[in-house]
Amino acid sequence: MMDLKKLAKELNLSFSTVSKAPHDSHEISAATKRRVIAKAKEFNYQVNLLASSFRKQKSKTIALVIPEVVNDLFGPVINGIESVAHEKGYHFLIYMTHENLQKEISIFKLLQNGRVDGIMFSVSEQSSDITHIKELKKNGIPLMLFDRVIEQLHVNTVTTDNFAGGVLATEHLIEKGCKEIAFLSISKRASVSLGRMNGYKEALSRNAITHQEDMFIYCDGNDIYNRTLVRALPTRKNRPDRIFASVETLAILAYEVCNELRLIIPEHIKIIAVSSSYMAALLNPPLTAIVQPAYEMGKEAASMLINLVGKKGFYFKNQNTEIKSKLVMRESTK
Amino acid sequence: MMDLKKLAKELNLSFSTVSKAPHDSHEISAATKRRVIAKAKEFNYQVNLLASSFRKQKSKTIALVIPEVVNDLFGPVINGIESVAHEKGYHFLIYMTHENLQKEISIFKLLQNGRVDGIMFSVSEQSSDITHIKELKKNGIPLMLFDRVIEQLHVNTVTTDNFAGGVLATEHLIEKGCKEIAFLSISKRASVSLGRMNGYKEALSRNAITHQEDMFIYCDGNDIYNRTLVRALPTRKNRPDRIFASVETLAILAYEVCNELRLIIPEHIKIIAVSSSYMAALLNPPLTAIVQPAYEMGKEAASMLINLVGKKGFYFKNQNTEIKSKLVMRESTK
Repeated sequence: MMDLKKLAKELNLSFSTVSKAPHDSHEISAATKRRVIAKAKEFNYQVNLLASSFRKQKSKTIALVIPEVVNDLFGPVINGIESVAHEKGYHFLIYMTHENLQKEISIFKLLQNGRVDGIMFSVSEQSSDITHIKELKKNGIPLMLFDRVIEQLHVNTVTTDNFAGGVLATEHLIEKGCKEIAFLSISKRASVSLGRMNGYKEALSRNAITHQEDMFIYCDGNDIYNRTLVRALPTRKNRPDRIFASVETLAILAYEVCNELRLIIPEHIKIIAVSSSYMAALLNPPLTAIVQPAYEMGKEAASMLINLVGKKGFYFKNQNTEIKSKLVMRESTK
Repeated sequence: MMDLKKLAKELNLSFSTVSKAPHDSHEISAATKRRVIAKAKEFNYQVNLLASSFRKQKSKTIALVIPEVVNDLFGPVINGIESVAHEKGYHFLIYMTHENLQKEISIFKLLQNGRVDGIMFSVSEQSSDITHIKELKKNGIPLMLFDRVIEQLHVNTVTTDNFAGGVLATEHLIEKGCKEIAFLSISKRASVSLGRMNGYKEALSRNAITHQEDMFIYCDGNDIYNRTLVRALPTRKNRPDRIFASVETLAILAYEVCNELRLIIPEHIKIIAVSSSYMAALLNPPLTAIVQPAYEMGKEAASMLINLVGKKGFYFKNQNTEIKSKLVMRESTK
């Protein structure tokens, strides 16, 4: 409310005129509408032109578009979203991209039809082309990103502090007296991987350790391809004595390869991973982890989105919530 | 088609008349409609009276109502459902009861409004009252149950062979030379628990072992309550040397209690569980499990439901698909 008042003052228009501008109101002229919207954009407001027509046929439904559900993160995220959706009387649709751009595009096409009031989205690894996302945004359907984000989209986001998590994990490994730290990444592009990779580099640099590019292992293929990459690590010349897995599935893969090659964790090789699994403590050996508060992320994302859906006409754009992750030390880095 | 033909012959009516009976057709009399429907019911057909009106405003949406998603079973189940839904062009809503009857009732009320074409449902532990489920069924919305079912509802089901799984797990433990087998159950009522408990009893009886009622531990409370129950096991007079956990979360709880009490698995106590987790093999020690094909269950449930949705007027009721589970031997029962 305060924001719209400022806008009205700036334009020398009444509050009532300004607040009607983004709606299908016939009480104000097209020229005034354009003036208000231009000024609003100048002030970094998002203008929800379709808001009023949407409101008439509100579906009370929010959608979640994620890569997959068999993942330590998205399970509790879904629980968190559902708890807020249920409380606020919203239905909750779920779509999976399976890290496939074509599937992602087809889901976004489906979502253009006004079936949902808003969308929470975690980008698939393949999303180099974002035309379909921009299209949806242009159509005025509230969209927010969580976990895996795309900065140039300028929408609200909920993330964890990937950079800080990367620093934390790497410094923990360095403290354990080691210099050859392999970083298992799921992607060359995904925001979460990049954040953690930059954190890794920062930690090395703080400790005057030279970064070697071949310590970045890009496990962005199928399971067989990734397994081959990880299997090759212990036999190569500059073989790493530590592994930092950027996602839990890659830690599981590293554990399996160590079992297979009879490498003992943590004696022969130490492993740390970003993992929110309730089972990490029971692994053999228990896995040291950077834990993301997944349930809270889901709750925050749903609250933010439902808040956006309820906004009339204008809302301030680029609200970013970063939720802190924490280090939980266990046997795998002892 | 063959079935409707038989029905027509039986009634001495034309195929066309019979097939129109359950629709809002004005071409046949109310009396004939009633006659056809009565005969159809006699032949054990389900009559979908609302089918035609639904078809006009088909939402192309199916809903899944489950207790929770942080569960080794429902993650892959969701993946399986989604793969079929996407292929057939259906949207996929998800609702969670959190094992709470009131929440379940409120979800079923929401679903009465024709928003969805069909519902897949896994009963919450508390569901002693099933009025809300019957209500929905009466309204003609195709409903099917999976995993946790209620027999007296007479709807289609997808389950695993809980009884056979119970026998398999218990006989595996008996083979390992033991007689004192505690059974950790999540519920006194749930179909999955009862099936596995009966399988357990059957295996004891086949091996001439007397069943002691106090070997059934009902972990149907909150985590603190359940933990207290499991913690009491090793100190009681007839302390069990084997544990059969009917669900994975209870195996995790048993592992945690053993860690805490410095009991070594499998030396001091052997543990087996029903578990579909991809992490079971990496637990400390690796967990022997009865594995349910969760992804296949999800696929089968969605295919069956979408098939039901597409049925015109009549469908044969009580189609039950039972998917086989299998024993995977690991260290925890060695």
